[in-house]
Amino acid sequence: MTLILFAAPALWPEYRDTLPAALTEAGIEATLVTEADPSQVDYIVYAPASPLQDFTPYSRTKAVLNLWAGVEKIVGNPTLTQPLCRMVDPGLTEGMVEWVTGHTLRHHLGMDRHIVNPGHIWDPTCPPLARERPVTILGMGALGSACAEALRALNFPVTGWSRTEKPGQLHGDHGLRRALSTAQILVTLLPKTPETENLLNADRLDLLPQGAVILNPGRGALIDDDALLAALDRGHIGHATLDVFRVEPLPRDHPFWTHPKVTVTPHIAADTRAITAARVIAENIRRGEAGEPFLHQVDRARGY
Amino acid sequence: MTLILFAAPALWPEYRDTLPAALTEAGIEATLVTEADPSQVDYIVYAPASPLQDFTPYSRTKAVLNLWAGVEKIVGNPTLTQPLCRMVDPGLTEGMVEWVTGHTLRHHLGMDRHIVNPGHIWDPTCPPLARERPVTILGMGALGSACAEALRALNFPVTGWSRTEKPGQLHGDHGLRRALSTAQILVTLLPKTPETENLLNADRLDLLPQGAVILNPGRGALIDDDALLAALDRGHIGHATLDVFRVEPLPRDHPFWTHPKVTVTPHIAADTRAITAARVIAENIRRGEAGEPFLHQVDRARGY
Repeated sequence: MTLILFAAPALWPEYRDTLPAALTEAGIEATLVTEADPSQVDYIVYAPASPLQDFTPYSRTKAVLNLWAGVEKIVGNPTLTQPLCRMVDPGLTEGMVEWVTGHTLRHHLGMDRHIVNPGHIWDPTCPPLARERPVTILGMGALGSACAEALRALNFPVTGWSRTEKPGQLHGDHGLRRALSTAQILVTLLPKTPETENLLNADRLDLLPQGAVILNPGRGALIDDDALLAALDRGHIGHATLDVFRVEPLPRDHPFWTHPKVTVTPHIAADTRAITAARVIAENIRRGEAGEPFLHQVDRARGY
Repeated sequence: MTLILFAAPALWPEYRDTLPAALTEAGIEATLVTEADPSQVDYIVYAPASPLQDFTPYSRTKAVLNLWAGVEKIVGNPTLTQPLCRMVDPGLTEGMVEWVTGHTLRHHLGMDRHIVNPGHIWDPTCPPLARERPVTILGMGALGSACAEALRALNFPVTGWSRTEKPGQLHGDHGLRRALSTAQILVTLLPKTPETENLLNADRLDLLPQGAVILNPGRGALIDDDALLAALDRGHIGHATLDVFRVEPLPRDHPFWTHPKVTVTPHIAADTRAITAARVIAENIRRGEAGEPFLHQVDRARGY
């Protein structure tokens, strides 16, 4: 069996040993290569930064296994007829939970005024307890659900909103209005699709309570940048901590860099970790060979 | 039954209604006052900032119920012969867990370099996962144990050290050496006693790994201030986030205010919350009346 890795060359050292080890662990005999005759390739391990854009010659390929959670750069590719699977890496999920929980607590506790306190002000006003700080998460997939669980364990009342109906969660336009109206801290963890682009426009930002904080570790396009800057400038939004942007790295002249109410983190909230991701890839190949359904297969119609 | 509150006048509005309500809830009939003939007082609710220092006239008083977790300002009072109980307030514990978890994640994720980033540096190096970041907690009482549980839920490997032997935890001098040697983040949550004063002296700070971060939400006297400043200056300790100090408010000329590797928070990590504390007081009065052992009674020999 031949497995080919299409990814930036920097990733090869990370997967060269971890992927064969994970395959052996899963009882799969396969050769991992970075170059091969397309007609001989059984599975493609794919990072969207790869130059491969024409999947037509991969006639025998049983699945394209994405190394990233986001598939927006590949899902619309008309040459891709093979099953496509997203990465749901436990290491990536853990990293996301840590980033979301950390920045939620940072804003909840008002840490910034202690980290930067040039006036040496001693103001022993306690923040409220987490149980008094409602958090809303937009997008309750694997990442959003894991974040909700971690925040609830710290007593934050968490409201989850999904685009599709899910038990115990808000959904639809009416649900979105309710979810936004109570969110002292809002976490956006939706995939980028035509429907989610600019989901947080000026009207929806207006629905948030005065002083709400936005954390966006999802996709840059979920928020209308200009509407966000305007809402920050007039004090309606208290702060925005953003990990993802329409253009990355964030251009040096982008106003987010200098805005006093914006924190830029450089797309670090979630990163695929080779050691855990390799096990997910191996499990999907095992499933493919055993005729079982793939994990995390992308629904092309929905776009994720 | 007469219950007297000795506390700063600012606390009266917080307890005037919550305490009677909690007593009624516990089935206790009692009058809450701020002045009374000492010989008529059944229980004293006490904040150590109160001017009451001579407990001799309170001949009928069955217990002194402290509003704070720390008892070092009262435990050595020779006129106090009545049982003394510490406050273990669920609200205080929650606040402590939030502060410790928040600042642990802040240092773990390296947030400060994003919060203050005048060079607009985009460096997408991911931090390690929490599972790769060992945390040590000195002091595994109610607060330390709650913090350990919250940090373990986020996958941090937590080592606990207690002064007394407790199952599953390190203790004693040898245990302390081991606990310090692995601590990338060290949380000090010990009470102030003659044995814990300057526990973190120059020798013990040397045992921490290079670049370790210290969080002290316990008591200012646990750490030798000069030894800490020296260890920060030579780069052995990476950062110290301190919530408690030998003198509070921290004097304006104290070097902690200006040290680039020190964050001062103004004794906000844990505060008693009237609504939850009142229930603990009421439960202890119910126990006293029923002849049951008090919750959280102080061992005078140990000092806490």
